[in-house]
Amino acid sequence: MLLHNIEDVRKEITEWRKSGLTVGLVPTMGALHNGHLSLIKKAKETCDKVVVSDFVNPIQFGPSEDFDKYPRTLEADMDLCNKEGVDIVFAPSADEMYGEGQRLSNDTLTYVCPPFFYVNTLCGKSRTGHFDGVCTVVLKLFNIVQPDYAFFGQKDAQQVIIIKKMVNDLNVPIKIIQCPIVREESGLALSSRNKYLTEQGKKDALVLSKILNNIKSCYKKGITDVSALKETAYNFLTEKHDLEYIEIVDKYTLEDKIKADDNSIALIACRVENVRLIDNIYLGENS
Amino acid sequence: MLLHNIEDVRKEITEWRKSGLTVGLVPTMGALHNGHLSLIKKAKETCDKVVVSDFVNPIQFGPSEDFDKYPRTLEADMDLCNKEGVDIVFAPSADEMYGEGQRLSNDTLTYVCPPFFYVNTLCGKSRTGHFDGVCTVVLKLFNIVQPDYAFFGQKDAQQVIIIKKMVNDLNVPIKIIQCPIVREESGLALSSRNKYLTEQGKKDALVLSKILNNIKSCYKKGITDVSALKETAYNFLTEKHDLEYIEIVDKYTLEDKIKADDNSIALIACRVENVRLIDNIYLGENS
Repeated sequence: MLLHNIEDVRKEITEWRKSGLTVGLVPTMGALHNGHLSLIKKAKETCDKVVVSDFVNPIQFGPSEDFDKYPRTLEADMDLCNKEGVDIVFAPSADEMYGEGQRLSNDTLTYVCPPFFYVNTLCGKSRTGHFDGVCTVVLKLFNIVQPDYAFFGQKDAQQVIIIKKMVNDLNVPIKIIQCPIVREESGLALSSRNKYLTEQGKKDALVLSKILNNIKSCYKKGITDVSALKETAYNFLTEKHDLEYIEIVDKYTLEDKIKADDNSIALIACRVENVRLIDNIYLGENS
Repeated sequence: MLLHNIEDVRKEITEWRKSGLTVGLVPTMGALHNGHLSLIKKAKETCDKVVVSDFVNPIQFGPSEDFDKYPRTLEADMDLCNKEGVDIVFAPSADEMYGEGQRLSNDTLTYVCPPFFYVNTLCGKSRTGHFDGVCTVVLKLFNIVQPDYAFFGQKDAQQVIIIKKMVNDLNVPIKIIQCPIVREESGLALSSRNKYLTEQGKKDALVLSKILNNIKSCYKKGITDVSALKETAYNFLTEKHDLEYIEIVDKYTLEDKIKADDNSIALIACRVENVRLIDNIYLGENS
């Protein structure tokens, strides 16, 4: 069922609640791919009812970012959700989410602001205000849907860590389920932004996963010095790659590490054909 | 029932929910007086079950404010709550609310930040970060108790306006009930901070309500020019009064007014015996 209004969603979910059904939420910006599909499948396994939100959230995009051209494919998203037995696709307008004609600014709207130490690193460094926008919209969706479980992909690792922190800090009564990265056979992590890439770009983009896999295998061979591990990235990069960061940090707190350990995560952000791509890998796990 | 732990509160409330009972929350910092009592009575009238939180929230006090000496009277608070049939008094420690040994800072904790235009005025001007601390703890309490209704006093007018704005902006599924200011027969608005005043101080403090009543009666006589209305305050002030602000603003948005109207609220903050007191009055209403 496709719903555009908050009140309609609430009405439906109130009925489910009365019947004692559990509810799962998969927050997305649409342009659904197999990564999202894995979240939806996990939600269907875990909960009686599943809501997918499909909303390109303006307040998490910077002024020079790709909000306008971000892929919007609601019809295809609906087909996929119907096939998977999703109960509600919630696709609100920006006016529905933020108030008609509301100026989208922290001058005029209440924001949820994750801790500076979690934001002033990795993607947050180049995307000022991004995670404020993410936390704000996610908390709004949590309050609208009031799910028992919410499902996020490890692909956006900093995002999941920040959302888990928000849930903990604000006592949000929702369990966050993190699902593994889904990759093409080539190793490329699925992303809605892959649509911007040419075939050649997709090949060039493989260096992200190659760099991370190589760091992990170096770590498994006993190299723990973070500088040395990061240094190995440069063997893969060419003039096709505009590296934004390569970091190895604590997987819970995002704190920088000097020595990598089994609680470390390696993360990369890199532009290929001017498309910003991210990827990451847990060093301590076998998957 | 006195509870100190979040989990105990949740357990109790889950049972109520299963029985279909409605829940009201009265958030307080303890030191309960007849103002709080009026909120509790209203909550008892409105809801099947009533929770009073009793927590002096460290993150809403500035470094030079009265956090340490703020009155703490849990035993007397319990007596009053028991007499009124309050179902749970929730009195957590700071460790329980923010995590053991957690540094209380926006470097390390997720905050809820109300809009700059709502904060950069009135009490917010002199109390940097105060309303961030208020919104954060109130949202935490909302998420812990998940009440149907929450009750706030008009005494802290800017606070109620900001909390209503937060509830609206973040789609919090809770109805905010605002209750009128309770006054001593003298006209002095009840406040936990009145305990700091001497008998003489209490007399000197009467100018706050006198100034506001006078502004309202001038308005009722047809004076709408805000500068002229504010000017009338100075007839009452003596060297005993350290005025922080006297303002007439929109009662929904806190926007400054040039001409007062029936949507205006007059607010005052003034120190007497170095105790910071606040008071306010709606110009358009008869009460």
